[in-house]
Amino acid sequence: MIRTPYLLFLGDAPDNLAAKVAQGIADWNPDAVVGQFRMEGCKADVGVPDMSLQEAYDKGARTLVVGVANRGGVISEAWLKVLTEAMEIGYDLASGLHNLLRDEDVLKATSARSGATLHDVRVPTVAYPIANGKKRTGKRCLAIGTDCSVGKMYTALAMNAEMEKRGMKSTFRATGQTGILVTGRGVPLDAVIADFMAGAVEWLTPDNDADHWDHIEGQGSLFHVSYSGVTMALIHGGQPDAIILAHEPTRTHMRGLPDYDLPSLEALRDMVLPIAKVANPDAQVVGVSVNTKALSDEEATKLCEEIEARLGLPTIDPFRHGAGRLVDALAAI
Amino acid sequence: MIRTPYLLFLGDAPDNLAAKVAQGIADWNPDAVVGQFRMEGCKADVGVPDMSLQEAYDKGARTLVVGVANRGGVISEAWLKVLTEAMEIGYDLASGLHNLLRDEDVLKATSARSGATLHDVRVPTVAYPIANGKKRTGKRCLAIGTDCSVGKMYTALAMNAEMEKRGMKSTFRATGQTGILVTGRGVPLDAVIADFMAGAVEWLTPDNDADHWDHIEGQGSLFHVSYSGVTMALIHGGQPDAIILAHEPTRTHMRGLPDYDLPSLEALRDMVLPIAKVANPDAQVVGVSVNTKALSDEEATKLCEEIEARLGLPTIDPFRHGAGRLVDALAAI
Repeated sequence: MIRTPYLLFLGDAPDNLAAKVAQGIADWNPDAVVGQFRMEGCKADVGVPDMSLQEAYDKGARTLVVGVANRGGVISEAWLKVLTEAMEIGYDLASGLHNLLRDEDVLKATSARSGATLHDVRVPTVAYPIANGKKRTGKRCLAIGTDCSVGKMYTALAMNAEMEKRGMKSTFRATGQTGILVTGRGVPLDAVIADFMAGAVEWLTPDNDADHWDHIEGQGSLFHVSYSGVTMALIHGGQPDAIILAHEPTRTHMRGLPDYDLPSLEALRDMVLPIAKVANPDAQVVGVSVNTKALSDEEATKLCEEIEARLGLPTIDPFRHGAGRLVDALAAI
Repeated sequence: MIRTPYLLFLGDAPDNLAAKVAQGIADWNPDAVVGQFRMEGCKADVGVPDMSLQEAYDKGARTLVVGVANRGGVISEAWLKVLTEAMEIGYDLASGLHNLLRDEDVLKATSARSGATLHDVRVPTVAYPIANGKKRTGKRCLAIGTDCSVGKMYTALAMNAEMEKRGMKSTFRATGQTGILVTGRGVPLDAVIADFMAGAVEWLTPDNDADHWDHIEGQGSLFHVSYSGVTMALIHGGQPDAIILAHEPTRTHMRGLPDYDLPSLEALRDMVLPIAKVANPDAQVVGVSVNTKALSDEEATKLCEEIEARLGLPTIDPFRHGAGRLVDALAAI
């Protein structure tokens, strides 16, 4: 568990894209964010107040979160200086970078001296069990994509936010580094040892109230040969009651696999349902989430209507249309 | 790569079952076995000559392989004495035990002094790549089980042996500790980090001659919720041309999962084929391997005939009937 609230470290990000992790945290967990810390030359802005380390600490911030991608596979001297100073003030550090904080001698030494915790959220810290497959109480929803990076996390966060707005019992369950930084906890599933993947998902989504929904962050795709094993473990460890199909309509091939075409939503539905029923015979495909970022309003509406007619399932872009109709579908289960 | 030939260490095994790893090596790679080393009180015998450490070394043995399960989660003092002495003579050590050789101070110290290599085959030693999904040359066969531990490794080894007997080009590709000890190399797939599982299988089964067959050792089951992600990675990393369905007909529930029924062979076939076609559009289910150990000859023959009629696929128990008809099916592709 990462201590909140956060000060978001944007470093010297050259643009907003480089700070998308910070943006995700500011968008989805605004109550946990005190402000942003920008170094000279920073071109990103996630729309929260600029603050010095000391100022944010005095307002309650307890973890400085690296919300920006680094360049060139190294953590720069300029960054290290800020991160070190933060620990000396009293902050913990959290990061989802491939370069681990703990591998930087100066950060390790400072944390030992100051008592700060270094959270490298790409690295599992729990000895997960082997999955036992036992039916758990409460309900679970999982988005399954035609490809990687089609909006599964966004869909789960939007559905969770909509449920909270309606006063329903609901928790977002993070399985990737951005999600973990947003919520302060979770499982970095892609870094878990093969035998324990499904058990890690069971651990993440334990017994709960009968009317409580876990929104489990999806990973990979059953049709993406590099990561399909991770997706499989999510389905069998998560034993979802409700499955949302997630899609990005402008992809010309599977992400990173130029020789692989995207499956149709029908092919995805037909593959995922028998797989999901192994772990939960009551599993249903209940809706479709389309990432229509590349389309106009008119094109987006037309596409969603067309898919809805084809599949007979509520179809929306949660960013453009809100997640209300998907939540309606879950509430009807 | 583990140096051959081997001397098989049977320790103080209370029965043959405890020495089944040694038996597997003696059965499937007899040319690599010089003899067996049995301590006082050993009740196992894998049918190869008894030898002292020095005698076997003089006959060429270069690795002492722990072919026996340990008891109580520790490596006993009596074992450590033999293993240490072996390294002093000039042996390397190899083991698939959960207790790692490298975690024993005396073994680590002796190996440092003698120059012996400690092979803990449960632990990956290679930085596997992320799978790229590129079509590889050569052909691949994978057995997929209705459950775990239904005879997938045995089936692959039997098919490989039959192909070698016929002078066909063929390699057994180990993905578990017994298989790795049998062949001296392989990938301990259940211990690989999630993101690299499929890439490890690609690494294990590289480009080959067009008429060469890799027989990839299967793991888990698509219907076993604890390990299905590993099975998925084997299918998508292995991109098999030929799939064998493997089955044990007397199971009353999935191994270790009392609430889970076994799937029918038809359900397995219908699930695996669309999954396999993602990575290899030419994938075919070509035969069925039944572990009939618990049945009489007559019952076994009747069951195989019944399955063959139902599925329209050659159906045999490779132990009882030989793997010839499965190899015929592959040769016809």
